[in-house]
Amino acid sequence: MSIYWSKITTELDPYVPGEQPQDKKYIKLNTNENPYPPSPKTLQAMKDAANADLRLYPTPTCDKLRECIARFHGLTKEQVFVGNGSDEVLAMSFMTFFDPGRPILFPDITYSFYPVYAGLFHIYYKLLSLNDDFSIPVEQFLTDNGGVIFPNPNAPTGRYLPLAAIEEIVQKNAKQVVIVDEAYIDFGGQSAAALINKYPNLLVIQTFSKSRSLAGMRIGFALGNKELIEGLERVKNSFNSYTLDRVALAGAIAAFQDKDYFAGSCKRVIATREKTAAALTKLGFTVIPSAANFLFISHSVISAAKLYQLLRDNGILVRYFNKPRIDNFLRVSIGSEEEMDLFIQKTAKIVG
Amino acid sequence: MSIYWSKITTELDPYVPGEQPQDKKYIKLNTNENPYPPSPKTLQAMKDAANADLRLYPTPTCDKLRECIARFHGLTKEQVFVGNGSDEVLAMSFMTFFDPGRPILFPDITYSFYPVYAGLFHIYYKLLSLNDDFSIPVEQFLTDNGGVIFPNPNAPTGRYLPLAAIEEIVQKNAKQVVIVDEAYIDFGGQSAAALINKYPNLLVIQTFSKSRSLAGMRIGFALGNKELIEGLERVKNSFNSYTLDRVALAGAIAAFQDKDYFAGSCKRVIATREKTAAALTKLGFTVIPSAANFLFISHSVISAAKLYQLLRDNGILVRYFNKPRIDNFLRVSIGSEEEMDLFIQKTAKIVG
Repeated sequence: MSIYWSKITTELDPYVPGEQPQDKKYIKLNTNENPYPPSPKTLQAMKDAANADLRLYPTPTCDKLRECIARFHGLTKEQVFVGNGSDEVLAMSFMTFFDPGRPILFPDITYSFYPVYAGLFHIYYKLLSLNDDFSIPVEQFLTDNGGVIFPNPNAPTGRYLPLAAIEEIVQKNAKQVVIVDEAYIDFGGQSAAALINKYPNLLVIQTFSKSRSLAGMRIGFALGNKELIEGLERVKNSFNSYTLDRVALAGAIAAFQDKDYFAGSCKRVIATREKTAAALTKLGFTVIPSAANFLFISHSVISAAKLYQLLRDNGILVRYFNKPRIDNFLRVSIGSEEEMDLFIQKTAKIVG
Repeated sequence: MSIYWSKITTELDPYVPGEQPQDKKYIKLNTNENPYPPSPKTLQAMKDAANADLRLYPTPTCDKLRECIARFHGLTKEQVFVGNGSDEVLAMSFMTFFDPGRPILFPDITYSFYPVYAGLFHIYYKLLSLNDDFSIPVEQFLTDNGGVIFPNPNAPTGRYLPLAAIEEIVQKNAKQVVIVDEAYIDFGGQSAAALINKYPNLLVIQTFSKSRSLAGMRIGFALGNKELIEGLERVKNSFNSYTLDRVALAGAIAAFQDKDYFAGSCKRVIATREKTAAALTKLGFTVIPSAANFLFISHSVISAAKLYQLLRDNGILVRYFNKPRIDNFLRVSIGSEEEMDLFIQKTAKIVG
């Protein structure tokens, strides 16, 4: 506390990122990073961009990157907004589309940054209880509201909502914006980007941090009708005109162009996820069906809190959320095959 | 306009960055970029950072960079906040230290982003008229207010306020935060960072975009007492936990360590500025005394609007602000010696 803080600052309950411990080398299965590096072409493009031109500002409109993303999704540049990680894109979306007043809706178990944004921008919200199997209760999203946001697949559960259900939510909330946060969509889901030309109130947000192995470069984007994108641009240009640096832009363009590498790395992660899920089931775990690059698991005998600590002692970091309904679950990111074999071995010893 | 925009979005009057035209090659003297490239060590550090580790998130606390900046300024890491360009640091400072309610104070002629931030965060403000010579009227900053912000040297005038005057403003506004925006301080001024251990209400903001030739990488920072920095961290962690990417962090650290290159490049810019100012004075221009990497100039015969256009036709871009009191001035960034020789030649022909 400080007498110099604004009222909002005093009231904030900030987001806590997954730990990045420096004390020793861990197998990091706690922040949903991709086990495989960015594509060689992506790294080369970034090395090439580290040149004398860095004395110059980037292009604030990021046209080339936006064209590249648009082409990939069958949209136009005017339907694409880019930002400094999908967290920034989400923050700006809260400012652009949600008003203090009528509450927005999101699930009770979801990305823990949503209530934080709501706090920062004084947006009221109503939590909707996920069903007992952690699936999204579609009918609850059809009540009166000031906006809707949810991840698909959901985090930290990994559960996927089929496109038809998304379409129902978007269609029946025609007067407000529905944000589908697709950070993990490339690991097995179908993107709602396919619905954008049909619904002017749909905003789809994606990131380069997971499926494109660029968590270290902070690049995210939003897809939506051009009025929604224009709104985001207005907010961005009232906050920071140049959010993406030249090296990030070069890397992002190369990553989007290298489609084969992207497809291959997603495929490997999915295969490892399925193998890990099967092994965990055999060990007596409840494994929530996942379309993401992580698994949400619970064991009937050993508590999640205890297992978290024992894995940590064994050099393996996973994510534990000490929150109602999920305090007996762990979120385990999908690492390389070798890492997951070791994770299964250690876990088997602990629960065996 | 869109029915999907929030009330704030509808009311915004966004910042307009200096143009980055793609139609032909210009001599760019319009966005205060450094004519010299980042240091070779800085570029090498960034190339080296473009590696497989980019699959991992950066360290959200940016400790190494903060330590590096702290050492340079004789402060501790807890007195340093870093962000995605000083524009982002400024935006977060508005959120952290200013409340809707009592108006904040800034000059009528200043960085045109301040009223934009105020609009985005619903902060009232009162404009204080600069003196006729564009110097800051210190006594006006000693009235009741909810916070103070001004650049030193001021933009777009380039005028510098000596440290004793800054200290008076900080001292007599002890109950609220005084932000000194030092984007251009390395080109001839003395940083107010020297006052930080004396005044808990002083926040100094600097950038890597000008004196360290890294406009393309988006790195800025704030210096202040640790309570102020803690407030900024709270807001950052409620907006975007990872604002600086791994390549930017590596480049920033190298740039701060390469002190000789930094000093040399500042010295060259200052020498070129003085030479250019002398030549412009000879051509009949009023040249406001500048401690920045730009000059603010006006001619008694040819209007600024006309000169702007004629220079543009000649392949030279400068900045023209169509605003009260300064609509007969041009802001000219200091380029390389060759660029400025050419600028003087072309200008001499136009006004001669």
